[in-house]
Formats: sequence, C-alpha cells, structure tokens
Amino acid sequence: MQLIGARLDAVEPGVVEISIPFREDLTQQDGFIHAGIVTTILDSACGYAAFTLMPAASSVLSVEFKVNLLAPAKGSTISARAEVKRAGRTLTVCSADAFADGKLCATMLGTMISR
Amino acid sequence: MQLIGARLDAVEPGVVEISIPFREDLTQQDGFIHAGIVTTILDSACGYAAFTLMPAASSVLSVEFKVNLLAPAKGSTISARAEVKRAGRTLTVCSADAFADGKLCATMLGTMISR
Amino acid sequence: MQLIGARLDAVEPGVVEISIPFREDLTQQDGFIHAGIVTTILDSACGYAAFTLMPAASSVLSVEFKVNLLAPAKGSTISARAEVKRAGRTLTVCSADAFADGKLCATMLGTMISR
Amino acid sequence: MQLIGARLDAVEPGVVEISIPFREDLTQQDGFIHAGIVTTILDSACGYAAFTLMPAASSVLSVEFKVNLLAPAKGSTISARAEVKRAGRTLTVCSADAFADGKLCATMLGTMISR
Repeated sequence: MQLIGARLDAVEPGVVEISIPFREDLTQQDGFIHAGIVTTILDSACGYAAFTLMPAASSVLSVEFKVNLLAPAKGSTISARAEVKRAGRTLTVCSADAFADGKLCATMLGTMISR
Repeated sequence: MQLIGARLDAVEPGVVEISIPFREDLTQQDGFIHAGIVTTILDSACGYAAFTLMPAASSVLSVEFKVNLLAPAKGSTISARAEVKRAGRTLTVCSADAFADGKLCATMLGTMISR
Repeated sequence: MQLIGARLDAVEPGVVEISIPFREDLTQQDGFIHAGIVTTILDSACGYAAFTLMPAASSVLSVEFKVNLLAPAKGSTISARAEVKRAGRTLTVCSADAFADGKLCATMLGTMISR
Repeated sequence: MQLIGARLDAVEPGVVEISIPFREDLTQQDGFIHAGIVTTILDSACGYAAFTLMPAASSVLSVEFKVNLLAPAKGSTISARAEVKRAGRTLTVCSADAFADGKLCATMLGTMISR
C-alpha cells in the first residue's frame, strides 16, 4: 500500500473507500495504471471492508478474488469502494468497484478469511 | 430453463429478475437447491440482462462467471436479479444476486459475449 | 447429481472424474448442454476431489468457483476431471476441466470448505 | 513490469514463465509479497502466453482473471508459469501458477482479448 501511495478515504462498518494518485511508474505499455495495481487497490479495499466487521483481535487475508477490467485506468486518481456482501464467522465475501477519475474501470468479487 | 421451471419476473434495460419454485429433485445431499442450479439461474439472469442492451439481431453467450455461495439455497422460491455493470461492443459484464425466499444466498460476476 | 444422471468414473487421492450422458432436456437454446449443468458437473467433481483428502467424518461445501466456457458442450458424453491444487485445514482449492466427447469445453477454479 | 523488476524466463507457443526477485517494498504487513504483486506477475505471464498464439500485429488486454492465494509468497524469487487453455479468434483463456522459491503460492484462471 505504501509502495503505491494508497490513501484511506472513507470507513464505515462493511464499507471502505481507498484511492491512489496517478503515477507514471504504475502504468503498463499504453500509459494506463497496470491491472495488477488496480487489483491491489480493490483487494486492499475488500480486505479493509471485511476487517471492519471482524472481531478486534483478528487479522484478514485474501482467499481469492476475481477482477473484471472494464475500462482503461487512466486519470489523476484511481479509487476503490468495497462493500461486504456477507460476513461469516470464518469467511467474508466482498464486492468492490474501482474508478478512474470517477469512471468505473474495474470490479472485484472476492473472499476474505479472518484468523 | 424449462428443466428447472424458471420464470421471468422483471425486465428493464440492463436489469432482469428470474425465479424458480423450490423442487425436491433440484436439491443436493442436504436438501438445499444444488449450487449448479443456483448458478444456472444467476447465469440466465445475467444473459438476459446483457441481452436487453444488445442489438436486436444478436444472441448472447456466457464467456465465464464466478459464483460465491453465501448461504444455503433453501426456501419455496429461488430468485435472481442481474444487472449490467458495463455493456461493451463485444463483451458485457454483469453482476447478479440470488435469493432464497428473499434472503441473499449467492452472488455472481460474469462476462457475456454477443455474436 | 441424480437429476442429471452423473456417474463417478475415477477416484484417487486428490483426483476425481465424473461423467453424464447427453440428455435433450439439459440443453439450452442452441442444443448444447446448459452452462449451469456443465458447472454442476465441474463443481461436483471438485467437491469429490476435495473430499478425497479430507478427514473421514467431514463434509464438503463449495465456497465459490469460476468457470470459463471454452466450447459448446455438445456430444454423447460430458465428463469432468478435477484435481486438488492445494488442500488446507479448512479450505481446499481445486481446478477442473470439462470435456464434451473428449474435447475440452469448460474449466473451473474453485474453493471448497470442510465442516 | 519494470516497477516490480520482472524477468522473462521462458517463452514457447502458449507457455510463458516470468520471475521477480524478492523486494522488501513489495511486501504487505506480514512481510510476504503483496497479493496484488503476485497477481501482476500471474496476469503478465497470462498476457504473454496468450500473445505467443496471436497474430503478429495484435496486442493483448486482460478481460478478467480470478486468483486463488494458496500460501504466503515468501522467498527470494517469485515466479509464474502461464499456459493457454484455449486460444480463440477474439478471446484466449489462460491458467497460471505462481511459485515462491518453487513452492506453489497462487493460481490464476483468466481471459485475454486481442485487438
């Protein structure tokens, strides 16, 4: 998260928003933010969202996620908004959308585990 | 769709709702509707939702989908609500939720192709 | 599984093969086996494969899966071969391929949970 | 790819291997390589693998991918091996495994598009 300069914009129970400023060195061959970086932001947002509903002493790990890349991640800010779909005792399922300057650019559905 | 007795409950541009009545022969070992049947309903809802935004002469095929099973699909009616996340020229990405008697039991994120 | 007439063809630790004979009533609008049925076979194969590596008293549930549909599921037999990628204490990850008369028609990557 | 210092280790038609040396600044809170970075390597390997089977003038984009994180990505080298499952005219489906010092740590199933 520090490598890519991410910032926590909003936190409430089950919902988290994160953003990063555009950086030249996070782009792929076409000048867009690399899919792996967009995934990192989405995954981090899902992890934090899951964490807001877990017991205080627990920590959170990603089990798996699926990402659809919907549009080039181009703009001055890339943000992600994650929401818990279902919080279980062990597993928490989250969905998240990523936006490039407010335009939907990717979406994630993922599973987190607490330990 | 006829095998499982599905019914189209609502259609608007980019959004479709489908439901099936509970049937003993669609259950797995615990008496819940089988994950494959829940997937069929979710996939059908996504396909129809994508189709509402495609040119008239086209047909729709599923490229891929991911399903999270969130709770046992148990109840008198299983319904699914699909929504287009992004409609492209070739590919359309949809998300869908399935409900057992109104309770969220599964969620899908999938990609459809028109041809 | 009984609804679709599935048969267990091979079982070894971490690997399972299942097949179903073609049936008219399992097809979609183009005469191919419906994606949901192919998913059911793949999911069942993954569940059984995971189960072969679990303690005797446990039962297995699907947490989530992703399916890519690669070719029309058309032919006299649809089979699936699932393999455990990683067996953990709680979660088991499996991959599976489906074949229509021996031709690869779909592939799954999924997560199973023991309880 | 330059940001994370990736190296192309092997290329043949439909198969590509990539690796990165461990770097402190690519880790998450537990000292393991971040899931987003592992995803970047897997996604890049899939993209290159798909590209080996595409016409010369085309370029490749990721449509979507699913990743299962199987073990902590800890070690001096993280590598990925991607393989084309099916190469179509428009869409190519790839699977890939990631290894931390040779130990399986993540697996991907994804869809690439040529344009």
